[in-house]
Amino acid sequence: MATTVPHQQPTPERFFDFINAYQQTEAMKAAIELEIFTAVAEGNTTAPTIAKRCKAAERGVRILCDFLTIHGFLTKDGSEYALAPDSALFLNRNSPAYIGGAIEFLLTPRLREGNARLAEAVRRGGTALGQGTLEPENPDWVKFAQAMMPLMQVPAETMAAELRKGGEAHKILDIAASHGIFGISAAKQNPSAHVYAADWKNVLEVASKNAQAMGVADRYHLLPGSAFETEFGSGYDLVLIPNFLHHFDLPTCVTFMRKVYAALKPGGRAAIAELVPNPDRVSPPTAAAFSMMMLATTPTGDAYTFAELESISKSAGFGRVELAPPEIGLDRLVIAYR
Amino acid sequence: MATTVPHQQPTPERFFDFINAYQQTEAMKAAIELEIFTAVAEGNTTAPTIAKRCKAAERGVRILCDFLTIHGFLTKDGSEYALAPDSALFLNRNSPAYIGGAIEFLLTPRLREGNARLAEAVRRGGTALGQGTLEPENPDWVKFAQAMMPLMQVPAETMAAELRKGGEAHKILDIAASHGIFGISAAKQNPSAHVYAADWKNVLEVASKNAQAMGVADRYHLLPGSAFETEFGSGYDLVLIPNFLHHFDLPTCVTFMRKVYAALKPGGRAAIAELVPNPDRVSPPTAAAFSMMMLATTPTGDAYTFAELESISKSAGFGRVELAPPEIGLDRLVIAYR
Repeated sequence: MATTVPHQQPTPERFFDFINAYQQTEAMKAAIELEIFTAVAEGNTTAPTIAKRCKAAERGVRILCDFLTIHGFLTKDGSEYALAPDSALFLNRNSPAYIGGAIEFLLTPRLREGNARLAEAVRRGGTALGQGTLEPENPDWVKFAQAMMPLMQVPAETMAAELRKGGEAHKILDIAASHGIFGISAAKQNPSAHVYAADWKNVLEVASKNAQAMGVADRYHLLPGSAFETEFGSGYDLVLIPNFLHHFDLPTCVTFMRKVYAALKPGGRAAIAELVPNPDRVSPPTAAAFSMMMLATTPTGDAYTFAELESISKSAGFGRVELAPPEIGLDRLVIAYR
Repeated sequence: MATTVPHQQPTPERFFDFINAYQQTEAMKAAIELEIFTAVAEGNTTAPTIAKRCKAAERGVRILCDFLTIHGFLTKDGSEYALAPDSALFLNRNSPAYIGGAIEFLLTPRLREGNARLAEAVRRGGTALGQGTLEPENPDWVKFAQAMMPLMQVPAETMAAELRKGGEAHKILDIAASHGIFGISAAKQNPSAHVYAADWKNVLEVASKNAQAMGVADRYHLLPGSAFETEFGSGYDLVLIPNFLHHFDLPTCVTFMRKVYAALKPGGRAAIAELVPNPDRVSPPTAAAFSMMMLATTPTGDAYTFAELESISKSAGFGRVELAPPEIGLDRLVIAYR
C-alpha cells in the first residue's frame, strides 16, 4: 500500500516544521508547568488575565497561547482564548481526566537522551543507552506508574469489561503492573478474583497503594522482580500483559509468552494490550511511530503488528488469537487462548 | 477570526503527539547525518540496501524510514521506500537545492537551550539566555551564514528581481548581510551597483568569500560591527533588511529604521523581508509560530504583522509602505519608500 504526500509543490516548509518540532514539546511542557490551560478553564481568557493567574509576562503568555492556538490546543477569537475540547478534558488540572502529569514520565531525561542519540541508535539498531529503559529497578518506571495512572484508568476499565464478557476470572496475573490499574480494574470486574501483580519492587509500591485506595488490597498480591525470572505460580484464568511485549525482540517475546502459557490453566486467556501498527508499519500514525521510541530507548523493542503478536502467541503454544474490537486508549487488545 | 479544531471527539492522542514532537527533530537530524535521503536518491530503496549505504543497522534504518514515511518525507510501497518531492529536492545531498546543512544552525545548542527553558522565558517575557542570540560576534551567526546560504539563494534572487522592477540601484546597503546572498543577488541584478554589507566582523568573512566566489567582490564593501552603531554613510538607493527586525522590540525597530531612512537618498527604498503573520497572529502557521522562536531566543523579538511593519516604517519617516506580491521563501517582502 503506497502512502501519499499531501502537498503539490516542493517547499522547505515541512522540513523546517519538522526540525523545529522540538518547540512543540517545549511549548506543551511550559504550558503544563505554568498551568495555562487551567487558567483559561478558570475564566482567564486574555493574555493579560492569563499572565496574572500564571505569574508570567503578558508578552510571553500571548506568544505561547498563539502557538498553542496554531496547533489546535486553544482557539482564539479576537484577543480571547478558549480551550479546545481535548484541552478542556485532559489539560485542565481541575478536570478528573487531567493527564498533564504524564510529562513527568514522557519527558524524563533518559527518554530524551535516547532520542537525542538517535543516529547512534540507527547505526547499532538499538538504543545508545545500554539497557535503556530496561534496567532493573529503573526509577523511571516509578515515574511512569505515578504519571500515567490517570491516563490509563479509562483504557483499563474498557479492557476489564471486554475481558469480563469472555467469562469470570478467579485468579489473575498482571504483568508489569506499574500503577496497577489494569489488574485493579479486572479485580473490580471479577469480584472473587485474586490479582497477582508482577513488576520491579520499587514500582509495586505504587500499585500496592493504588490497590489499597481502590478497595481491592485484600485480593491483591505482589510478585516483585524481573518478569522473566519471577515465579508466577500457576492456575491463572487470565494474564494481563499491557504494554510490555514492545520492549523486547520477537524471540524474547516468544520465550516470555511460553512462561505465560505455562502459568495459565487450560482455557485461560492472555490479554495483550499494545500499540498495533498495520502490516504496512506506517499506519495508523501514532501506533506506527511508536517503533521509533522503542528504537531510541530499548536494545531490541518494537511496535508489533497483529500478525506478529499472533505468531508470537502461537509459537508459545497458544491456540486461537484474536484482535478484540474496542480500542484500549491508543492500544489494541489481543487475546490469546490456551 | 476564530480558529477551528479539526477533530470531533476529545482524545489524548494530540497531546502525546505534541509532547513527543521532539522525536521529529531528532529523526530529521539523524536522517541528515546518516544521509538517508541521499542513499534513497542513489537507488537504495529497501531497508537492507539503505542500511548498507549508510553504514547502519537494518532494523534502525527500517524504523527511521517508517517514521519518515509516516511524516511524509518518504513514501513506502511494500518494502520499497522512495523520496517525497520535497525530500528529493531539498534533502538529497547531491541536489543543488540541498538544505540539510541548515541543521547546523537550526539545532545549534543555544537555540535548543533557549527553547528548553521556555517556561522561564514565558515568565519573564523574553529569552532565559541573557542577550540570547543577540550577543556581539555570536559565533552562531557564522554557522547561520554558512548553513542557510543554499536555502536563501532562490529567495534572494526573487527579492532582487522584484526590487529591480522598481528601478536600478547604484548604491545598496545590506543589513545583517550574513552569507551575503541578498546583497550579492542585488549586485547581480544591478550591474553598476556597489553593495555595502553590514554585519559582525566574523560573519562578514563568510559574506566576503561568497561575494568573491560569485564574482562581485570588486563592488562589495564591508561595514563590520553592530548595525545600530556602525556608520552606514548615505546616498543609498536601496537598503536590504532581510530577517533582522524580528530580533527587536517595536521602539528599537523604529530607532533602527530612522537610521535607515537617514542613509537613503530621497526616493530610495528600504526592503524588509520578514516572516509576516496575519493580524490574528495565529496564521499562516509557520510565520505565526516564528514568534515562539523569538520569545525563546531573544530578549524582546517578535514576528511582526504588516500593520506593525508599516507603522514602524512610518514612525521612522517613511511615506508609502507596501507588501510586495512574491513570497521570499517563507518571508514576505515589505517595501518602504523614502
